[in-house]
Amino acid sequence: MSEIHIDRKGINELDKIKRINLINSITGIKPANLIGTCDKNGNTNLAIFSSVIHLGSNPPLVGMISRPEGEVERHTIENIKSIGYYTINHVPVDKIEHAHYTSAKFSKSETEFEKCDFKEYYADGFSAPFVAESPIKFGLELKQIIPIELNNTILIIGEVAHIITDDNLLSSEYYMDLQRSKSVGISGLNSYYSLERINSFPYARKEELPDLKTNN
Amino acid sequence: MSEIHIDRKGINELDKIKRINLINSITGIKPANLIGTCDKNGNTNLAIFSSVIHLGSNPPLVGMISRPEGEVERHTIENIKSIGYYTINHVPVDKIEHAHYTSAKFSKSETEFEKCDFKEYYADGFSAPFVAESPIKFGLELKQIIPIELNNTILIIGEVAHIITDDNLLSSEYYMDLQRSKSVGISGLNSYYSLERINSFPYARKEELPDLKTNN
Repeated sequence: MSEIHIDRKGINELDKIKRINLINSITGIKPANLIGTCDKNGNTNLAIFSSVIHLGSNPPLVGMISRPEGEVERHTIENIKSIGYYTINHVPVDKIEHAHYTSAKFSKSETEFEKCDFKEYYADGFSAPFVAESPIKFGLELKQIIPIELNNTILIIGEVAHIITDDNLLSSEYYMDLQRSKSVGISGLNSYYSLERINSFPYARKEELPDLKTNN
Repeated sequence: MSEIHIDRKGINELDKIKRINLINSITGIKPANLIGTCDKNGNTNLAIFSSVIHLGSNPPLVGMISRPEGEVERHTIENIKSIGYYTINHVPVDKIEHAHYTSAKFSKSETEFEKCDFKEYYADGFSAPFVAESPIKFGLELKQIIPIELNNTILIIGEVAHIITDDNLLSSEYYMDLQRSKSVGISGLNSYYSLERINSFPYARKEELPDLKTNN
């Protein structure tokens, strides 16, 4: 075990695959979510994304990053722009292989729901399909697409309109238990991790600082 | 165990704490990172963020979301704007309590490095402090701050300039092993999760689709 130090020049000189893998995994664990959409003819689409991010709770806003014309994301983005609604569904641990293969390049007339063996689930007249097998699923209304010109990606922002889950995954304070839901994380492009809850800490107040220096 | 369905009106009607907790945890697991900065006088600052996100690998861009004037994030954002450089450091599992308490409101003259018992680490003339105890650390140069006007937050974008880690955390293909690094995830505001690697899958090709329907 020895320290590795890669500077900007070293990053440039890495071969392409190594650079992609390294930069995709240095930010840490990412959430594994399936994005459910449909087009105006009712053709459904399902795609795995690891770039979903919390933006704020009032209003309840959630973002995700995508290439605007990326081959994998194309149907998802087209559908979101066309319909204005989409769903985000946690990948359950017993479905990681199924979820991973939604990233294969299926044609528009093929639906990943059928190809990768997920069931569509509809609620309350919400037009986009949820994933029945997902323990935590929510529906969004598209609010804004912000271009990130530095690398030709986009930040897609939606407002949470529906949340569907089970009551045994919610604490009395309305925290979701991601171990009990068997939600998973992704590192890089293709490595899946299970989650085990370690601990929770109270809101941090300077006056209530524990003696951290002797805790080791 | 029974299904819960919360619609937009129901979200609005939740009490504030429950709404914050729920919306902060529905997106799934978030990476636990410490952001290291300093001001022009060399006063260092360290703050935990769960909003770091991969944006792209060429150029190597990493984002994070912040309130521009939030009390917790204030020193971090001021320093990043002032100096133009910052570090992102994975929280190791044996330091989660220390990392959590960096979110207490310390004054500008107090450094969380000392208060929360982390060691500063400097490399190659890079002005921002790294966290010595962190198994995966990287330094960034500020590239752009994009306002998200929908909820008065900002997306801070940096380009990766230095990566410091150990060679035993890198696979031959340059994937980082987040279980071996003992990196952790966060759910909501204050729950910490450890990570266990389950599996990796090859690049998904439609022609190589496994028989997912009989895999159950």
